[in-house]
Amino acid sequence: MTSEDYQVVYQRKTSLSKKFYTRSKRVFAGGINHNIRYFSPYPFYVRRAIKNSLFDVDGNRFTDYWMGHWALILGHSHPAVLSALIRQAKSGVLFGTANAVSVDLAEAIQRLMPRAELMRFSSTGSEATMYAVRLARAATGKRVIAKVIGGWHGFNSTLLQTVNFPFEYEESLGMVQEEEHFLESLPFNDLDRSLKILESRKDDLAGIIIEPVLGAGGCIPATREYLVGLQEFASKNSSLFILDEIVTGFRISIHGAMSVYKLEPDLFTLGKIIGGGMPVGLVCGKKEIMCLADPVSRNQKYKRCSIGGGTFSANPATMSAGLATIQYLIANKQTLYTKLNNLGEQARKRLSSIFNDSKFKVKITGTGSLFMLHFLGINKTANDKEVDNALAVATSNQKLLNKYHMALMARHNIFFLPGKMGCFSEAHNTGDLKKLIYATESIVASDLLKE
Amino acid sequence: MTSEDYQVVYQRKTSLSKKFYTRSKRVFAGGINHNIRYFSPYPFYVRRAIKNSLFDVDGNRFTDYWMGHWALILGHSHPAVLSALIRQAKSGVLFGTANAVSVDLAEAIQRLMPRAELMRFSSTGSEATMYAVRLARAATGKRVIAKVIGGWHGFNSTLLQTVNFPFEYEESLGMVQEEEHFLESLPFNDLDRSLKILESRKDDLAGIIIEPVLGAGGCIPATREYLVGLQEFASKNSSLFILDEIVTGFRISIHGAMSVYKLEPDLFTLGKIIGGGMPVGLVCGKKEIMCLADPVSRNQKYKRCSIGGGTFSANPATMSAGLATIQYLIANKQTLYTKLNNLGEQARKRLSSIFNDSKFKVKITGTGSLFMLHFLGINKTANDKEVDNALAVATSNQKLLNKYHMALMARHNIFFLPGKMGCFSEAHNTGDLKKLIYATESIVASDLLKE
Repeated sequence: MTSEDYQVVYQRKTSLSKKFYTRSKRVFAGGINHNIRYFSPYPFYVRRAIKNSLFDVDGNRFTDYWMGHWALILGHSHPAVLSALIRQAKSGVLFGTANAVSVDLAEAIQRLMPRAELMRFSSTGSEATMYAVRLARAATGKRVIAKVIGGWHGFNSTLLQTVNFPFEYEESLGMVQEEEHFLESLPFNDLDRSLKILESRKDDLAGIIIEPVLGAGGCIPATREYLVGLQEFASKNSSLFILDEIVTGFRISIHGAMSVYKLEPDLFTLGKIIGGGMPVGLVCGKKEIMCLADPVSRNQKYKRCSIGGGTFSANPATMSAGLATIQYLIANKQTLYTKLNNLGEQARKRLSSIFNDSKFKVKITGTGSLFMLHFLGINKTANDKEVDNALAVATSNQKLLNKYHMALMARHNIFFLPGKMGCFSEAHNTGDLKKLIYATESIVASDLLKE
Repeated sequence: MTSEDYQVVYQRKTSLSKKFYTRSKRVFAGGINHNIRYFSPYPFYVRRAIKNSLFDVDGNRFTDYWMGHWALILGHSHPAVLSALIRQAKSGVLFGTANAVSVDLAEAIQRLMPRAELMRFSSTGSEATMYAVRLARAATGKRVIAKVIGGWHGFNSTLLQTVNFPFEYEESLGMVQEEEHFLESLPFNDLDRSLKILESRKDDLAGIIIEPVLGAGGCIPATREYLVGLQEFASKNSSLFILDEIVTGFRISIHGAMSVYKLEPDLFTLGKIIGGGMPVGLVCGKKEIMCLADPVSRNQKYKRCSIGGGTFSANPATMSAGLATIQYLIANKQTLYTKLNNLGEQARKRLSSIFNDSKFKVKITGTGSLFMLHFLGINKTANDKEVDNALAVATSNQKLLNKYHMALMARHNIFFLPGKMGCFSEAHNTGDLKKLIYATESIVASDLLKE
């Protein structure tokens, strides 16, 4: 079966989605609401999602490894989250005031991550990282923020740089260069070169922000040495070390990647899992920094770091779904994280073994329940480079990866967002893993994966 | 009854809220998640909200005129929205992919507001205005954005200037002056002075963004002459005219304030009402501008204006609640808008008349179902100035306004977020209006409102 055949199979089974896409293009720029959600020839349109599965408008069922941008650690429509959400919906989804359930959720997070001495909820991760930067600038009186190449902290104007390959090009039209001047990019996992760059801007360095595992950048865990090195530099320089745990928080561990790596960030951001699938972001950290945002003791605007909140911050629907999720994670932490991490480890191991026995040179990266394939080339003599930063990911054979994901979708009803990292959830099981292995074996055996 | 008595009454009835506030301060900076949600001595904590009412942890019921930052045009937990939301929750709240219901909602909006030739959903209004600015800069190749003094477009770094009095001071610590240089502020409703300022920056003017009715800035409708004047300047100068309809869209009219004012914005933003209480933002407008964000035809990042989306954009929970709301508005538009506008008009008229017969000089502003009181002073010789811009609002007697709102809350169980604009919803009725009038009469007759 050839690559073209897979496209034919996909189109045959998604004819209603094709019509939806035609309608979509008449209302949405490019037919979508998030650039990465488009894939060729057109995305399928989801109507319903239960447990580990997406159901599209044509009635196809896909096993989902995208899981709402990796937010749904308990799977779609988990009973505990669903019943909390329905109960809350009957009692209102938007109070626009102080509310009781937000306190319960914040206390639960603080008990698990005591470095969250004070917090502020927002409605998206992109807002949370923007506010972390503002707090860092307010706390230090300095301006430069360092991020890593391939680091993704949302669509805010503050951090939208060196996200996609080619990294030296602007991420977007409409950015203001004078703003970008205050953002500095570091080579991920390369401590020596990173420290040299930091050294060159240390006098104006407000903080360093980094994901402990590059998420959108390609599922690459940072080395502990790298993270600790950055943290030490920040600390010695009186700059802030900001850990973006929007993907890793409550995924890598119930205490966050910071506990696994034994890090002590000044500020950190959460999102995704803590909202139970509902829109959420959270910036939190040291009391003496966070209290710069306190509007009560700092009642004059120019003495305060003004961060959101917005209309929907700490809304009770998000808070209730998030609280139900965290409570479930606490109650089941032993079995749940063991299961998720085992599934992740098995996936990495068995997928590696399939490709090792094939003509393809593939590296599998990830940690815990996160995993991703990187095609380096077709024959065994292909470059056997390490995939330990976003450049290596971007210069791997993305075309093959997309074909592989498309083949999984078309032929085996397994969904990875093409080109992106996958994850397991509580709703997945070893049967799903077996199907993924079988599907991969059969794709590798076919002649699909040619360049 | 004195001012102190009201505080005593409030504290007596909210003793459990006081405990929640103590807990809150241990987890949230300043004890809250949105600066404006704090009021002295502490906010009450809401547990449940139905129709026109908030129920706090102490069991108090408050008639709500804040209505989730004015988002809930149908009231809390409206049956049509609730059943759509529950149905959706059972089928998943976060697909993270293209989905069917987002297309239905976008088409409904486009039919009512045909200037939304193309759209992009985000999760907050703050994101939508940030993306509108980015699109304006991308479309024009220029950098300066003009806003009005007192205009509020969210907590994004791009537009956080001249929001609060004193307007000439920074809104926040941690802002970067080099960014702020590209934002210019205009005196609201003063066309001559605004045009002079625009003229001085016209060569680099990317766009003008304005709320047709100053919302957070004090419930002040712009004059048509002012809006048309700005629009004409933008058009002649090849800059964009951006209307921020996050508050007014679907509130002032089902076709937006742009239809009432007969405006032709290049871009406009929506939020609040279109999410049915769930987190939402939307940037929309002319095809030739919005298509700059199309990742399919512009598949190289430096040819594209990269705007969100984020994890939660166009999530099916928001889309379903929004669609149910818009469909209800369409089905009931005649009676519903007539009712809301009548309640608003009656409130403005009857509150005016109470204060005209009193020792207080008060101006009431607003339009449609939005209304707000402004205390100018106590005796009749107090300055009888017009309240037609944010400076007049900010320099009115805010202390008296806060006392009035606090008295309504403590003594009459009527909730306005202290110092902020109020609104009516479908869940309000003439009985509520009568109670508000009666309560106001009795407060005016008391000796509470002294300076």
